[in-house]
Amino acid sequence: MERRKVGILGATGMVGQRFIQLLNNHPWFEITWLAASDRSAGKTFGEACRWKLDTPLPKKIAEMTVQPNVPELCEGELPKIIFAALDADIARDLEPRFAAAGCAVISNSSAFRMVADVPLVVPEVNADHLDLIETQSWRKAYGGKGGYIVTNPNCSAIGLVLALKPLEERFGIESLFVSTMQAVSGAGYPGVASLDILGNVVPFIKNEEEKMQEEVGKLLGRLDGNRIEMLDAKVSAHCNRVAVEDGHTECVSIKFKRKATREEILAAWSEFAPLRHFVQDQHLPTAPEQPVEYDAAVDRPQPRLDRMRGRGMAATVGRLRECTLLDWKFVVLSHNTIRGAAGAALLNAEVLALLGKLDKLGVNAKPVAAQVAVTA
Amino acid sequence: MERRKVGILGATGMVGQRFIQLLNNHPWFEITWLAASDRSAGKTFGEACRWKLDTPLPKKIAEMTVQPNVPELCEGELPKIIFAALDADIARDLEPRFAAAGCAVISNSSAFRMVADVPLVVPEVNADHLDLIETQSWRKAYGGKGGYIVTNPNCSAIGLVLALKPLEERFGIESLFVSTMQAVSGAGYPGVASLDILGNVVPFIKNEEEKMQEEVGKLLGRLDGNRIEMLDAKVSAHCNRVAVEDGHTECVSIKFKRKATREEILAAWSEFAPLRHFVQDQHLPTAPEQPVEYDAAVDRPQPRLDRMRGRGMAATVGRLRECTLLDWKFVVLSHNTIRGAAGAALLNAEVLALLGKLDKLGVNAKPVAAQVAVTA
Amino acid sequence: MERRKVGILGATGMVGQRFIQLLNNHPWFEITWLAASDRSAGKTFGEACRWKLDTPLPKKIAEMTVQPNVPELCEGELPKIIFAALDADIARDLEPRFAAAGCAVISNSSAFRMVADVPLVVPEVNADHLDLIETQSWRKAYGGKGGYIVTNPNCSAIGLVLALKPLEERFGIESLFVSTMQAVSGAGYPGVASLDILGNVVPFIKNEEEKMQEEVGKLLGRLDGNRIEMLDAKVSAHCNRVAVEDGHTECVSIKFKRKATREEILAAWSEFAPLRHFVQDQHLPTAPEQPVEYDAAVDRPQPRLDRMRGRGMAATVGRLRECTLLDWKFVVLSHNTIRGAAGAALLNAEVLALLGKLDKLGVNAKPVAAQVAVTA
Amino acid sequence: MERRKVGILGATGMVGQRFIQLLNNHPWFEITWLAASDRSAGKTFGEACRWKLDTPLPKKIAEMTVQPNVPELCEGELPKIIFAALDADIARDLEPRFAAAGCAVISNSSAFRMVADVPLVVPEVNADHLDLIETQSWRKAYGGKGGYIVTNPNCSAIGLVLALKPLEERFGIESLFVSTMQAVSGAGYPGVASLDILGNVVPFIKNEEEKMQEEVGKLLGRLDGNRIEMLDAKVSAHCNRVAVEDGHTECVSIKFKRKATREEILAAWSEFAPLRHFVQDQHLPTAPEQPVEYDAAVDRPQPRLDRMRGRGMAATVGRLRECTLLDWKFVVLSHNTIRGAAGAALLNAEVLALLGKLDKLGVNAKPVAAQVAVTA
Repeated sequence: MERRKVGILGATGMVGQRFIQLLNNHPWFEITWLAASDRSAGKTFGEACRWKLDTPLPKKIAEMTVQPNVPELCEGELPKIIFAALDADIARDLEPRFAAAGCAVISNSSAFRMVADVPLVVPEVNADHLDLIETQSWRKAYGGKGGYIVTNPNCSAIGLVLALKPLEERFGIESLFVSTMQAVSGAGYPGVASLDILGNVVPFIKNEEEKMQEEVGKLLGRLDGNRIEMLDAKVSAHCNRVAVEDGHTECVSIKFKRKATREEILAAWSEFAPLRHFVQDQHLPTAPEQPVEYDAAVDRPQPRLDRMRGRGMAATVGRLRECTLLDWKFVVLSHNTIRGAAGAALLNAEVLALLGKLDKLGVNAKPVAAQVAVTA
Repeated sequence: MERRKVGILGATGMVGQRFIQLLNNHPWFEITWLAASDRSAGKTFGEACRWKLDTPLPKKIAEMTVQPNVPELCEGELPKIIFAALDADIARDLEPRFAAAGCAVISNSSAFRMVADVPLVVPEVNADHLDLIETQSWRKAYGGKGGYIVTNPNCSAIGLVLALKPLEERFGIESLFVSTMQAVSGAGYPGVASLDILGNVVPFIKNEEEKMQEEVGKLLGRLDGNRIEMLDAKVSAHCNRVAVEDGHTECVSIKFKRKATREEILAAWSEFAPLRHFVQDQHLPTAPEQPVEYDAAVDRPQPRLDRMRGRGMAATVGRLRECTLLDWKFVVLSHNTIRGAAGAALLNAEVLALLGKLDKLGVNAKPVAAQVAVTA
Repeated sequence: MERRKVGILGATGMVGQRFIQLLNNHPWFEITWLAASDRSAGKTFGEACRWKLDTPLPKKIAEMTVQPNVPELCEGELPKIIFAALDADIARDLEPRFAAAGCAVISNSSAFRMVADVPLVVPEVNADHLDLIETQSWRKAYGGKGGYIVTNPNCSAIGLVLALKPLEERFGIESLFVSTMQAVSGAGYPGVASLDILGNVVPFIKNEEEKMQEEVGKLLGRLDGNRIEMLDAKVSAHCNRVAVEDGHTECVSIKFKRKATREEILAAWSEFAPLRHFVQDQHLPTAPEQPVEYDAAVDRPQPRLDRMRGRGMAATVGRLRECTLLDWKFVVLSHNTIRGAAGAALLNAEVLALLGKLDKLGVNAKPVAAQVAVTA
Repeated sequence: MERRKVGILGATGMVGQRFIQLLNNHPWFEITWLAASDRSAGKTFGEACRWKLDTPLPKKIAEMTVQPNVPELCEGELPKIIFAALDADIARDLEPRFAAAGCAVISNSSAFRMVADVPLVVPEVNADHLDLIETQSWRKAYGGKGGYIVTNPNCSAIGLVLALKPLEERFGIESLFVSTMQAVSGAGYPGVASLDILGNVVPFIKNEEEKMQEEVGKLLGRLDGNRIEMLDAKVSAHCNRVAVEDGHTECVSIKFKRKATREEILAAWSEFAPLRHFVQDQHLPTAPEQPVEYDAAVDRPQPRLDRMRGRGMAATVGRLRECTLLDWKFVVLSHNTIRGAAGAALLNAEVLALLGKLDKLGVNAKPVAAQVAVTA
């Protein structure tokens, strides 16, 4: 099978590097285009990028020339599948331009996550929300074969919603409290200064609590025709930065609509295999075998030991115990730059491929004037 | 003024070392006796102790001989004021023997905290509970001049109750969540293995959540004759260990019985000066000028920057903001081995001194047979 | 091909765990026996071991029963290949008992490294020294098919000698200075207390400088009949512990007997492929493709980024520059529990297998009385 | 006694903050002027500065207005004593302008350290070099009362030369190796990214090895009329960054011109009290009682435990032992932003005050055109 050509926007950053790492030898996708800011454009990727991962930068990628990050300046053929790892401010400008150019923009940015016709998706949680792309104006162009934007949530929300989804399905969520201890890689590079985090905790991450609260509502919401009905549950988040390289750890207290026993909760997690049904057991290369793993040890999950479960794509839960205030307490952990960023986007792309939504995208389309709906 | 002679039980451990540091040049107290386990007894303190603090071990202390940790084997005069920094298992055996020998045992251990006639005290919060000592059987011996045990709470509870007390007084607490990020020094030495905490979080500390929940209830409880009526509030704790040397950071969500505005809460903290009234403005050497300091910066408190406020005795609060689930959220931080352990015990001793409860303790008393009441 | 049965002595420790990890799905070896101290014997491995690696403990291993760590108490068949991950004190007693029982003891301990008839081997450096086993008294029993002890060096010496060997071959080493920054995993578990290393450096590791200095001399020594002629070079080591989980970083200044240019040194490293010749290009599963990799970036090697090169078996060198005092300076890094411990022993075993020295070991032999020669 | 007015250039950075901390309640000096880059000028210091020290920002300082960092734009009276905490590039431009304006510029920057007529001084080591200022052209203006530049060395060189000076005096230094493990605060704020240093070592600090090597030569050099004769010794430095907040640890091997015994070396350090003679026992507020302290414990010095000796102004040495290559090995540690930066400059200023070189500086002088001699 020929691999589909993909490009990466913001390829030199931390999430961009993860895209390169995860796409290396990917069976379905092949990187043919890398773009970054003006400072990097024109250099080879090896020159432009301070590679910070512990696997080697693939030689072929190192030798590619970094392209300007606008579709108009693409030399040669613009790949129609674009993984976007941009800061929100830049994404707000650039991602629509690629969608308008006929590209499927698989975005990790927060810029459009809460926009009404943009799906915010974790495949195991709400793959059906992907249908929203058909309502996007760019998509409607070219006989419904135009480009679109699909997003994945914030790195702190993904592990949480994986743990919550099977509970919501079986017991209904009424309210929850979550307190995070987030890794420094979530802030990109250079990101958090070492003087701020060595031997320290920073009990604040800008906009993070707001994002977690609202994204959980959309992710666990219900697709109702052309719109998402948000989950009707109260979510209160406390977000903290700790001296961990990778892996977000989150303490959760939760109240259900229906009573749940310990055994029922553990069963909900262990039996959670939504993609098996959604894609009729077709294999998705990046999907973890078990999206939510429960570890029964008293002191798990821990980021250093558990973040790589399912090749970094599984969420690990542990310490299920009763809560004196709500119903139950537990801890959930996931890898913030794999499951929480690049891997999440890649899994979205794999599902889109199976659904046929990466086929025959408006090739060589001229950019169309279009607007993202702005009602969140 | 002549300084009162004091002894330290468990002097070689982390909290024992803090006692030595804080008692160095103390205007009221002078260390005349140091005791530790059999392994150390008979050595000079300098030989027996791996000093881990960043101020020098005082020369005079280094040259003292470590005594066996039982009152019967004390060479010379047993000081009648004993600061106890023992593990709970050992404290359960030893502390009553010193109380029976006529000593005021100012304990940092968890062994007797929840026992009905043992006061669990943070002076700014519930100094009136100290009256409970008069009901202890050892105390009643010698015409009411016998020994007794006084305790201070767990290091994770102290900062929290300092922040809670002024809120409870003005608004009444109905329920609260607290999620902690605790320093490794709280586990003593060697305590937490570096392989467990470098680049990691351990979302579990044995018995810590239970201790926090019940101790808050007793500390904020009301002295009713000879017993404490526990605070009637739901408290749910999540306890975590992080890669911080000193200073426990805690995220709190709280619901009050009466509505409180932001301004009212800030006023409650800034006006909180209970010792001023309790001891009629008499100076307590270890008391912080302001027990609860609010920092208005968006990203404070932080352990590395704020733990030494009030010479390690103040709690710092920050990030007061509305909670989507309960009423308000905030962060509180305090130094776990100063405010949370040795400094807390020392402040208890200073209050006892002002109250006359360190005077004329059953000197040279023979040990009395006695029992701690076991109903918690 | 049927896999050879192997056992692990000291299986629950940090190095024991690495053995299990590296032997999982090994094409030549299969773990059939695990032993540990009395505290663990009789339990399942899953119960006995606090697994600290970030890959899952294999289910089959978790279910095995931990055996007592003496050959006489082995239930069923004692495997004739024993990987030993014991503390030196225990190894001094136990390893000879397994050799006497006819086992090839592939040891990571320091107990016998400097003993005259025990080979101290890094295959890429001095695989020919393995012939020394034929002089061991246990080996001579059973018609030369008896057991023996083979050792690998200290974790701090392995990366260094890999970098030194090609230089010694081409230029001759006259003297060198090495200053290490060693990971905490080198001290085992619990090992280094977090209070000792968070935000800190400990400029002392017991016996480490002595071991490095003498082991380098033996490793780079010449096999002369039945004995090793030590390398005639002055080696001065400074050993330090730093807050790194895995990977020892070492700063080296070196003086050669013959002048060497920068290009000649880089060529010596890049052309270093000794196993290709020694074993006639036969594949060794654990051997890195390139044992010494040079990274030309100004700030490499770094433990977090480079320790996993060659699946943890390659040494990375960098920063080659002139020295104002000796001739050249460089930095070398290697993974201390893979290349520096379990992986080193495993590679020794693989070479022994190719050399036929794991075949027909004195099966079911009764222990023979024998002595390790004690002249170092 | 009225305090002398001083200003701080680069007041918002890490070293600038240390100046403010150390000058708070200083008996001789009073901050009356703070300057920083255009981004900060015009704001209050409290607004402009992200205060990163663990003592509170003095309220009076927080309310001062940050001034532009050029003498011409100073509102009101420009203080004649300027502590400069600028990056080298900026210092190269600005410091001469303040010297030309009649100021004593006490600089922590590397810009002019190696310039022939600029003294590079650690008072305990080479206070006599301060005479060089009289040869500076700015100084010669106004009848020898003009401004001048005085510098202190790099943070990595100061602790080292303190340990070396008494050895040089008694035994003569022929050659030495030094391998450093440097704290992140040495790189300023934001400085080292947390992703670069958590669980990691970076074996490279730009220009640091060169600076150490040449600065040691000048500091231990001899003032010969109007010039410094450099120390004739070979110095080879390896510089590394480690995950430590404050405190540089350095491993040293050294060869002397005359043989020295262990006792002689220890005596040289313990008897080292040069300021006592230089300033006839006059008290210098910032001088440590004992500039070089030897700790006999096997595992000291350590940055977390020893950096605050002598209020951060003492160097701690330890682990004196024989070197197999040169003569002796030891470890030296000092606080890099106190002894190694702001405290060093402040001590220089105190010595200048005692020497009368801060008196009657060209007040209200118009800037003079002048040049720093450029022969290093």
